[in-house]
Amino acid sequence: MELLKQKIRDEGKVLSDTVLKVDSFLNHQIDPKLMQAIGEEYAARFRDSGITKILTLESSGIAPATMAGLTLGVPVIFARKRKSLTLINELYSAQVYSFTKKETNKISVSKDYISANDVVLIIDDFLANGQAVSGLLDIVEQANAMLAGVGIVIEKGFQEGGKQIRERGVRVESLAIISSLENGEVTFAKEAVPK
Amino acid sequence: MELLKQKIRDEGKVLSDTVLKVDSFLNHQIDPKLMQAIGEEYAARFRDSGITKILTLESSGIAPATMAGLTLGVPVIFARKRKSLTLINELYSAQVYSFTKKETNKISVSKDYISANDVVLIIDDFLANGQAVSGLLDIVEQANAMLAGVGIVIEKGFQEGGKQIRERGVRVESLAIISSLENGEVTFAKEAVPK
Repeated sequence: MELLKQKIRDEGKVLSDTVLKVDSFLNHQIDPKLMQAIGEEYAARFRDSGITKILTLESSGIAPATMAGLTLGVPVIFARKRKSLTLINELYSAQVYSFTKKETNKISVSKDYISANDVVLIIDDFLANGQAVSGLLDIVEQANAMLAGVGIVIEKGFQEGGKQIRERGVRVESLAIISSLENGEVTFAKEAVPK
Repeated sequence: MELLKQKIRDEGKVLSDTVLKVDSFLNHQIDPKLMQAIGEEYAARFRDSGITKILTLESSGIAPATMAGLTLGVPVIFARKRKSLTLINELYSAQVYSFTKKETNKISVSKDYISANDVVLIIDDFLANGQAVSGLLDIVEQANAMLAGVGIVIEKGFQEGGKQIRERGVRVESLAIISSLENGEVTFAKEAVPK
């Protein structure tokens, strides 16, 4: 997705060979127009998949997932990292280790909102080691729901998550795939849309 | 906002005299079309305020704030409750006590994204005791930014937050004000738009 890549080139900050900071439009400040374009791009790619629910993880997945939900006309569920006192129903849950935050979170989704009748699109901001997406896939499995695929805003193609998840037969659509952050520079993979 | 009140009547669950659960469209599952309508309502109410930034708090404020940002054509910043490893810049921060979660969170916003030149609209999902909004107001003050006002999705009018914040001279626009949750029933305040 060229608009996204240009934004990464213009505003992304390479903090190390593995860390890209995109706090100015995705992870802290949000660019709503870009999120709308991202939502429309997911909707276009998954339009024929019969999606009934979008599943994401708080917090940075919420804006792109909500925009995709708006275009596809389906509800969005955000998995919670911490249990809310009002989230008292039966839960699906999974363990997710964050390499960025160096901690394990239990993520939870109420059984009220995903069932065996659903076709789920998972959306998340980053795909690196694949921990978060694996946890969300686990929840979709627990619900016996159908999986349409995974929509990622930025994939770090030089880390293992994308490969591992595609090898499980999951359709992963990443809108920008980064092949390297070496020498303080963002290099994109040639083919941004593996099918 | 009648559409919102109807949704609360249809799907809200009164858990006690003080707790209303709206997990089916705002706090866990999100209704993107309703969020769009909410965003447009804020945009209409604050259209002449010269807003340059919207400030909210992760996670439930993100969807309505992003939709308002889309309509107003301005960026949205979500204050973080936990420090991200990539959020390394200078920060504005404030303490927020959550009565629901019974814990104090330090909320933070990077100094990169709000400055003295900004006119800020604060948006949050709930206003009850006013702790979260007070923390966000504190951050706007630290930035020496102008405050346009506060947009709330659901205000618990029977708790003190709304009164206290309005007494400070802040414009608070709540799209639904609940006057009571007694007897397991949601009662709305007569006048939903105090100016």
